[in-house]
Amino acid sequence: MIPYERPIRFEDVDAARIVFFARFLNYAHEAMEHFFGGLEGGYGRLIATREIGLPAVEVNVQFLNPVKYPDTLRIETTTARLGNRSATLRYRMYRRSDGEKVAQVKHTVVTTNLLQMRSVEMPDDVRAILSEHIEL
Amino acid sequence: MIPYERPIRFEDVDAARIVFFARFLNYAHEAMEHFFGGLEGGYGRLIATREIGLPAVEVNVQFLNPVKYPDTLRIETTTARLGNRSATLRYRMYRRSDGEKVAQVKHTVVTTNLLQMRSVEMPDDVRAILSEHIEL
Amino acid sequence: MIPYERPIRFEDVDAARIVFFARFLNYAHEAMEHFFGGLEGGYGRLIATREIGLPAVEVNVQFLNPVKYPDTLRIETTTARLGNRSATLRYRMYRRSDGEKVAQVKHTVVTTNLLQMRSVEMPDDVRAILSEHIEL
Amino acid sequence: MIPYERPIRFEDVDAARIVFFARFLNYAHEAMEHFFGGLEGGYGRLIATREIGLPAVEVNVQFLNPVKYPDTLRIETTTARLGNRSATLRYRMYRRSDGEKVAQVKHTVVTTNLLQMRSVEMPDDVRAILSEHIEL
Repeated sequence: MIPYERPIRFEDVDAARIVFFARFLNYAHEAMEHFFGGLEGGYGRLIATREIGLPAVEVNVQFLNPVKYPDTLRIETTTARLGNRSATLRYRMYRRSDGEKVAQVKHTVVTTNLLQMRSVEMPDDVRAILSEHIEL
Repeated sequence: MIPYERPIRFEDVDAARIVFFARFLNYAHEAMEHFFGGLEGGYGRLIATREIGLPAVEVNVQFLNPVKYPDTLRIETTTARLGNRSATLRYRMYRRSDGEKVAQVKHTVVTTNLLQMRSVEMPDDVRAILSEHIEL
Repeated sequence: MIPYERPIRFEDVDAARIVFFARFLNYAHEAMEHFFGGLEGGYGRLIATREIGLPAVEVNVQFLNPVKYPDTLRIETTTARLGNRSATLRYRMYRRSDGEKVAQVKHTVVTTNLLQMRSVEMPDDVRAILSEHIEL
Repeated sequence: MIPYERPIRFEDVDAARIVFFARFLNYAHEAMEHFFGGLEGGYGRLIATREIGLPAVEVNVQFLNPVKYPDTLRIETTTARLGNRSATLRYRMYRRSDGEKVAQVKHTVVTTNLLQMRSVEMPDDVRAILSEHIEL
């Protein structure tokens, strides 16, 4: 499990005065960029230099509790499933103010050559990080 | 079914040069605002004056094809399930450039008093629109 | 002058319950995409096929009145200055609810080859649209 | 001067493959939230509990160099002008990759009661932080 802390931003809320539901996917993606921070050059170099990305094929979000501004999320990222060219990441999100779980995201990605937009074998360094944090 | 057309914006893409996955929930929400356009004063008045909202409790997105800039989405919104205080909306999203289906979103919401953040009976006018567009 | 109508979205507001100040630049950009709608293939083709863009070099925004959800902006776009390789667009933004002016944006852009990130002569069709809507 | 480091996010870029111009105002606001971190409860409590905010009345951005993903901004925030009920913040933004200055933002705000949306005397603790970082 790799933890990531993320303050709720002033503009993350909506007209119902809670964090807008789509933002949880932005948070999940940030947590994923952080999760792959151990790659040489990080997730950024994977995308920009190696031209390999992890487009989503499926996402599931359970919203358990609303989140307000100000607060900070603690996001715990693990690997829920590891396949050949795909993996499912799991993000458990907690409010720092009271420790309550606020959301859980499952995010299935496929290792993809971004120039051809075709799936590719999962690179070893990507697989290594995913393997290390498997929690079925 | 209520259709909604939504141009992809210049800033909707990400560093992989395709529409960022979280944006599909922004699109879904816009389609929902449009879906409830028949309410007196629209979705906006429901939120801002009647203080009733439709926070998500669960979301499922299947990403079928990448979307690029420029293009336009055609989003077809229907009611997949209608409960007492909750409903599941289904958004089928198609690229206008070639008609391909690009994503399907299922979005379960609960009618909620936004001041108390508690579920309430679904208002009749909200139910009427949901009923009219049921497609199981 | 080319007018553009833009509903305020549910997620455009911030924790102060008014439209977040950065969004006015998103609106300005949308109005610019619309302003150049008369180009063959629109602004999208200019960017994606011709690889010519209009990156900003300066922006000035005056915020005159707050905007809330729900409301709709009417944005009137004109050309405030037309140079060799640059131009300044002016966006006057009004609330539809009461007609009040809410913001004015000045946006100076340079015609740029996006592959080399270097300024280029302004294409004739871009200049034609800018010329047609000059209002000093 | 208060420094703030901000990684460019995967979704911060646009179809021209550089950071979208509006995002610099998001970054500026984050830097401002950080700038006021010394308030008791931070900027968040100012907004949410004390119901005092700092809506913008004017913003000026100079874009000096494009920014790509991945990179990190270093933002240096100072007070450029301190008035009775208003102040102008200045954000100098640099790319970490090469130290180049990429943007400068001037941001004039007014201390405002968010319930009445009327200007109020600047609270002493807000003024103290602004005073400490004046750089004309």
